[in-house]
Parts: sequence; structure tokens; C-alpha cells
Amino acid sequence: MTHEPLAFGSAIGIVGGGQLGRMLASAAARLGFRTLVLDPDPACPAAQLAGEVIVGAYDSREGLAELGRRTAVVTYEFENVPVEPMRSLARTRDVFPPVEALEVAQDRVVEKAFLNGIGIATAPWRAVDDPAELAHAHLDLGTDTILKTRRLGYDGKGQATIARDASTDGAFESLGAVPAILEGRVPFEREISVIAARSRSGEVVAFDPAENRHGAGILRRSTVPATSPALAAEAMGIADRILEQLGYVGVIGVEFFVAANGRLLVNEIAPRVHNSGHWTEAACCVSQFEQHIRAVAGLPLGSGARHSDCVMENLIGDEVERAPALLAEPDVMLTLYGKAEARPGRKMGHWTRLLPLSRA
Amino acid sequence: MTHEPLAFGSAIGIVGGGQLGRMLASAAARLGFRTLVLDPDPACPAAQLAGEVIVGAYDSREGLAELGRRTAVVTYEFENVPVEPMRSLARTRDVFPPVEALEVAQDRVVEKAFLNGIGIATAPWRAVDDPAELAHAHLDLGTDTILKTRRLGYDGKGQATIARDASTDGAFESLGAVPAILEGRVPFEREISVIAARSRSGEVVAFDPAENRHGAGILRRSTVPATSPALAAEAMGIADRILEQLGYVGVIGVEFFVAANGRLLVNEIAPRVHNSGHWTEAACCVSQFEQHIRAVAGLPLGSGARHSDCVMENLIGDEVERAPALLAEPDVMLTLYGKAEARPGRKMGHWTRLLPLSRA
Repeated sequence: MTHEPLAFGSAIGIVGGGQLGRMLASAAARLGFRTLVLDPDPACPAAQLAGEVIVGAYDSREGLAELGRRTAVVTYEFENVPVEPMRSLARTRDVFPPVEALEVAQDRVVEKAFLNGIGIATAPWRAVDDPAELAHAHLDLGTDTILKTRRLGYDGKGQATIARDASTDGAFESLGAVPAILEGRVPFEREISVIAARSRSGEVVAFDPAENRHGAGILRRSTVPATSPALAAEAMGIADRILEQLGYVGVIGVEFFVAANGRLLVNEIAPRVHNSGHWTEAACCVSQFEQHIRAVAGLPLGSGARHSDCVMENLIGDEVERAPALLAEPDVMLTLYGKAEARPGRKMGHWTRLLPLSRA
Repeated sequence: MTHEPLAFGSAIGIVGGGQLGRMLASAAARLGFRTLVLDPDPACPAAQLAGEVIVGAYDSREGLAELGRRTAVVTYEFENVPVEPMRSLARTRDVFPPVEALEVAQDRVVEKAFLNGIGIATAPWRAVDDPAELAHAHLDLGTDTILKTRRLGYDGKGQATIARDASTDGAFESLGAVPAILEGRVPFEREISVIAARSRSGEVVAFDPAENRHGAGILRRSTVPATSPALAAEAMGIADRILEQLGYVGVIGVEFFVAANGRLLVNEIAPRVHNSGHWTEAACCVSQFEQHIRAVAGLPLGSGARHSDCVMENLIGDEVERAPALLAEPDVMLTLYGKAEARPGRKMGHWTRLLPLSRA
């Protein structure tokens, strides 16, 4: 529990060994750190690049305890790590980002209340715990709405849209009759995200906002630059406030809607490295992965400046077959995740096309 | 023995697990390949990032045979891999760069004869096998000279300079009385290098030349760009001829003297990724490490274009203590090799400062 930087050669623990854990492990190695990954699958994507995989469930007290015992600091690659075991671990070992950020990000109602509470605009929303509340909330919002489970939603799963004049009958049950949130659908021009980092000493650095296109609820493409300098500054300022308020350490992803009137609404926050920040690996001197490792290791943050404009696209499912053709294109950086099986909807890799730097 | 690209997920064997093997393993992983490294030290720098270390001497027939059996293609990180075991291995397994390149690069006399034989200028030289030949050759060259062992020299080891009017007495013995080469000392303005690659299908791509400064025989700094476009094109053309002549596959480092009259003389070739190409990791979309992996895997080569100018410096011995301060500087990319002990003269890492792209 110190602000001293980790000695090079120290071990960093990562909960989760998917592609994000893999890219974190790679960045940690480049800075001379060892990594241990906790994952139920000994052949997880991170296994290739991590020093060792501790095989265990994300919420395994034994696994987390071993991870804490054998490393100097513990971080995680996804926001659905169970809070209680992490809180226990944090009593004896630095855990970054802080467990409070997990709590906020795991529950859409807590998240929205947190954001609104510090003066950050979101879509209008209502907590919904039964079909009657849903019917009432839908009338109350008076627009098309989106019903989402409060917990464990990602990549568009656990969501249902309800047209303004439609009945809400059956919608609550269709998501499993679990605590939910109803959000008013905001007419928005586009979605952007800011990837920002806060160091142990409170320094905040943000990368330029990316414009994101989704398909079937999964990120397809991120484009940088995305906005006017003024809107970029506004979005980066919002990310800064979130980081400060959470006493955050590490990289965060903040997703925004740009409303038709130009107003920024925060859609959600992800207390981790983020798919819409993969472009930083190609277009910045210090990637989001290295930035996260620097932050949790107590090192100075790198600059968020980009040296090139760029477009990043995910390779999902059998799109990975495009890899050889992409390698034949100049100015493309390709990253594959080492996954053997290209199942539909599975993120297999991504690529970033570098473009000359504009000043926009 | 095919020109088909390796399937993603295949294993690549690397002889040697130092920092070059480490950075090759990292690049291979980013393209979805697994790596096996042959090294006598199970805790070698590459161990952290390779799939597995086969513990064995570089010339161990058992080790090389296992490496070949368990991988789809074998490459190496340094040019002093013994030729005969590699030639045996190459009968049953693709070995890139080709063994012929090893033979040329391992013996300074063979190397110079090869270069001169294809019309490429070098410093004047004489093969020297005993003290009498040395005395005669020194008189014959009529300048300051440098006596070098024919084999196993690197980073300035195995060399002795002899002033024009000095006696050669004892010099041959001082290097161990082994077969040697005497080179005329060329008044040169500066040293440059070209890192180039040739694919299995014969495509050649070169990175821009770097200007290199050495200290105590070890590379200290590489600066890009280094030369006029015309001189760059000439140097890249020479690298191209060498690659073609050797039927080369992979990345090569070609070191040049730029003589006072502007003439290019090849100093030596290194059939591997090269310290003076580490800047490509920071300033190019595709690094020399990825370029080498692409070449040996039968994939298309990346562009050699840089997106930024840059200066790369090595961190040698206790210079590694500068790492935290370097991380605090913007536009610096730092790479550490994960070596525990900072012995004098030991390469511990390197860093590259990005600068705005000039067109020079």
C-alpha cells in the first residue's frame, strides 16, 4: 500500500486471461515485469504471454489469494470480477483499479446514479424491479426505451428495446425477471469513447476520443480523430472527473453518446482497458495496455498524444480469415489473440490502419 | 519446404533466447504464432514471452532436433549458431535465414570475399594466418589497420588496432593466434546500417538507414533519418543485392561506413534482427521483429515506411537505472529485456524517442 513504483522484475497479477489480459501481459513484459494470470482455462489467450496461469475461477478465494501472495499488485481485465473476493484481497494487496470502480461499473443503476450525482449527464433512466415498475417507467419516460439487466451485460447481451407505443408485457420476463434498468432511447448522432488513465499519484492522461461503430451490440470500428477539439476536451474533462471521483488508478473506458444537439451523455464506463482503445497500440507511443501497467505499477504515465490518425476494426468470428490479406496492406498493424476456434461473435483479433496525422 | 504461409497458431522455433529472441517471440505472439526457444538458460530473456524453452546448447543435436520436430519453421537470433547442426536440421525442416547466410556471416574472410565477389565495396583486407602474413599484410595495406579474428567477434571483441608505423609483433598472438583478417582502417565520416527483409516469395523491403554511434565497440545510439534520399537508396540497393544473392529469407542487418568521399563500404552483415533496427518498433507500423516473423512464416512483408523520425539508445549495464526517468518523458518508448542483473556492458534495454516526421 505504497506510492513507490514497483521494482522492474516484480510480478503483476491479472484476473482474467482473455485478449485484454494477454495484451496487458505483453505490455508488462516490455517494461520488464512478470505477470501471473488467474483464469479457469490454462490455455486462455493470455497464457502464451503471461509468466504463469493460476488455473481457477475469477471468484475463487484460493486463486485470488495465491495471485495476491505471489504478486506485488493485482489488476483485472474485465469488470464482472466479483466484488467481495476482490475487496478481501484488497485488504492485504494493492488492487487497481479500486474495488469501488468495480462496484459502480457492475450495476447500471449504481453507475447512472453515480454519474448523475457528480453532475454528468446520461440518458434518462429508471430502476425497474418488476413488470409493473417497467410499465410505469416506460410510460413515464415517454420515448422508445431499452430495458437492460442491471448486471452482467456486455456486447449487447441482456438488452431489449421497447417502442414508445408498444406494450411492455413480457419484456421484464424475457431478460430473466432480474433487477433491471429502463433507459430512454436518446436520438444520438454517434457514439464516442475516451480511454483515460490515472496514476497512483493522481496524474490523469487521456487519449483522443474515438468514434465507435457497433454491429449486433459488438464494437466493429473505432476512428480517430472523432470530434472537434472542443468536444474532445469536453469528453476528456468528463473522464477526468470520473477518475478523480473514484480515486481511480489504471485505465478506464468511458463511452458517450453525442446527442443530436451536440450534448455529451455518458453511456457506460468500463474500469479496464477497452476495445475502443486498441488503436493506441498502433497510433501512440504508449498504448492503453502499457498505460494501464504504468498506472498500476506506480510509474509515470505516458503521453496520450497520437502520432497518426487511424481506424481500428475488430476481426470477429471467421473474419479472422482476412488476416493474410490485411498483412499485405501497408500501414496496417494486425494483432491476433491466439484463439484456436473462430466461433461466431468471438473476437479473434483486430487491426489498425494508420493514416497521416491531421490536426483536427 | 513450401511457400505456403504458416497457419496462424503454428509454432516457430528460435535458436537463442536473448533479447532478440524475446522480441521475436513477442512479435510472433502478436501474429498468433506460438514459439519454442532453444537456449541453455531456462530463465533466458525470451523465456517470459516464448511458449516454451527447450533447455540445451545452441549446437545440441538433440535440442535442435526437438526444436525442428515441434515447430513448423526454425530461425535464430544470432549468427554464431554452429553451421553443421543447422545444415542437418535444414534437411528436414525449413530453416530461415538460409544456412548459407550463416556461413558467410560467421567468417570475416568469407564475408568480405562474398561481398567483393558481387561487386560490393568493403575496406581493403587480407586474410592472415600467422605472424609473418600479418607483418606482410600490414605493410601491404600501408595504413592503420585493424586485426580481427575471422570468427566469433561481436561488440568489438576479438579486435586489435595497429598504427601504420607500428610493429605487428605480438598482435597475432594477442588475439589467440587464430585465423584472422587484417582490415585497412578507412577514414569514414560515419556509420550507417540498413535493416532489410526478404520474403519467401522474393519480395524485398528495407527500412530507412540509421546512423549509428558506438562506444567501446557496442552500439549506443541509432538516429533516423541518417542520410540523403540518394544515399539511402544506394544503401538499400546494396542490401537488396546481398539478400538476392544469398536467396535470403528473413531480416538482415547491413552495416556500412560512409567514407569521407561519400562512398559506401559494407562493414559487416548480420543475418538476423539487429540492434540498430530496434527503432522500427517505435517508428514503423511493422517492426523488424514482426517483419522477420512474417518473412520466415511465408507471409507478406510490411511496409518499411516510418511514421516518425526517431533516436534509439541502448541501456547498458547500470544505465538501466534511467528507466523510471525515461518513462516520465513524452514520446519515449521504453523496452526492457527482463534481465535481473545489470552487469557492465550488458544490454539491459533500449528506448526510442519519437520526433515529428521530416521528409529528409
